[in-house]
Amino acid sequence: MNLVTTKPDLLSEAFERIQDEVDSAFDAFLPVPQDSRARLVEAMRYAAIGGGKRVRPLLVVATAELFGVNHNAAVNAGCAVEAIHAYSLIHDDLPCMDDDDLRHGKPTVHMAFDEATAVLAGDSLHALAFDILTQPDTSTDPFVRAELVATLARASGHDGMAGGQMMDMMSEEQDYDLRQVTRLQQLKTGALLAASVEMGAVLGRIPPEGRAHLRAYARDIGLAFQIADDLLDVEGDQDKAGKALRKDEGQGKRTFVTLMGVEQARAQAEMLVEQAGSHLASHGEDARLLVELARFIVKRDH
Amino acid sequence: MNLVTTKPDLLSEAFERIQDEVDSAFDAFLPVPQDSRARLVEAMRYAAIGGGKRVRPLLVVATAELFGVNHNAAVNAGCAVEAIHAYSLIHDDLPCMDDDDLRHGKPTVHMAFDEATAVLAGDSLHALAFDILTQPDTSTDPFVRAELVATLARASGHDGMAGGQMMDMMSEEQDYDLRQVTRLQQLKTGALLAASVEMGAVLGRIPPEGRAHLRAYARDIGLAFQIADDLLDVEGDQDKAGKALRKDEGQGKRTFVTLMGVEQARAQAEMLVEQAGSHLASHGEDARLLVELARFIVKRDH
Repeated sequence: MNLVTTKPDLLSEAFERIQDEVDSAFDAFLPVPQDSRARLVEAMRYAAIGGGKRVRPLLVVATAELFGVNHNAAVNAGCAVEAIHAYSLIHDDLPCMDDDDLRHGKPTVHMAFDEATAVLAGDSLHALAFDILTQPDTSTDPFVRAELVATLARASGHDGMAGGQMMDMMSEEQDYDLRQVTRLQQLKTGALLAASVEMGAVLGRIPPEGRAHLRAYARDIGLAFQIADDLLDVEGDQDKAGKALRKDEGQGKRTFVTLMGVEQARAQAEMLVEQAGSHLASHGEDARLLVELARFIVKRDH
Repeated sequence: MNLVTTKPDLLSEAFERIQDEVDSAFDAFLPVPQDSRARLVEAMRYAAIGGGKRVRPLLVVATAELFGVNHNAAVNAGCAVEAIHAYSLIHDDLPCMDDDDLRHGKPTVHMAFDEATAVLAGDSLHALAFDILTQPDTSTDPFVRAELVATLARASGHDGMAGGQMMDMMSEEQDYDLRQVTRLQQLKTGALLAASVEMGAVLGRIPPEGRAHLRAYARDIGLAFQIADDLLDVEGDQDKAGKALRKDEGQGKRTFVTLMGVEQARAQAEMLVEQAGSHLASHGEDARLLVELARFIVKRDH
């Protein structure tokens, strides 16, 4: 038995911890009321608790750690990003959008409840995100609270995630080139991942001019994340993914994989991950979690 | 000609002014991008510009005026409330919710565009509201910005407007009594009207303990507003309303009118409006606009 080479699995432990913490926080944020709003809050809890890898909260926490931010404050901010992510999945899964029946291996919200409840549960998680960010537990400094809201609101609206989703909906009719697919994905997936890193820096009171290397890291992992998603859609195991796969091809959508081919797409994702890590060199060993998280993003099987 | 009795119509002028200002502000907030997000932003503009009486922005502005707040700052905050109101109408009108074809006398967003675009346009207006509130033009004081966000997020989520909408959806199955209908309406309609007044006070840096009379005013006009809406549903002119009427009865919903009868409901609304005005007595003539706005709420024909 060689104990010297047994390295504690930093990333697995961090994932387990953040998953527990985010679940506990949502449980506390969402007590079920004793009136007919119960169904709405049950649907919010169904979507927000016990599902998802929590990549975005972990990005917030791991970035905030670089700057010695209070851990619970960073978890709160991470929950806000995750509430936005969860609302977007509920709405994306609706029959009028992607019409998906399965998410995280269980029925989507409109299947488990109904469409109207799904619309409202998404809307309510959207509002909850900003409610969380303005609580003193997230930051005692109102400037930080206001900046967190500004960062998340911009990343999720028409100039961010929702805008990317619109471009994605139009992609079946429009033959995007690689530049346009990159722009689409920077908005649809990248904006919220970038906001997660940015919010860690906001919590750490790092001024915008000190965030350039973090933004470069976030941009690289955002693109790598989406290329990995496109690869999973082609090569992934549907049971592990817990959602429908092979959808891009059926819809005739242009993706990184259809435009670059499987081999080049994989090489590109791996190059981006190496590059992402290199942006954090100045933080040395402190950035190990963010570097490992970047690697996980291209290696994940779901 | 007796000029002495010719009183300028304060309320009509205030409505005209705020309608112009809100339209101009949304026009500036929402430039149409030169890519395939254009359709999304067109849908947001369709919903946000040129429709609605702008009761909520006027409440923000008229309350803020009591405390000498910068007018443009109050208009910005008013636009944020109106963005939330506009998003909620888009989602409420969806086929899976109230399934309405007409709003402000023109086709609803999902009819003029499509359902998926309507969902996304609502989501994007939701995010825009918080984006607006965190802009320095709304307040140079980050504490005020953070408090505005907190007030609006709480009023719109599961403990406010969205919660009320859920209670409303359940009302066909559940025979609510007057207490429950009151609670439903305090959330569904009242929360956002109350938030408008509250945000005026936040802009005026009035501490919570100094807002009791404003909250009493807001509570009274909120209930009066909904009773008037219920009366309009029974007695109103569909052309003037610009939306489908006589829906409550068809759905078997309990409302103030079905529970109290037309006469008692009207008397109750008028009593609430008088009471609302009396809460503002300490402001004297400064509160004239808020008092007239309260009267308008029960007299409006659309």
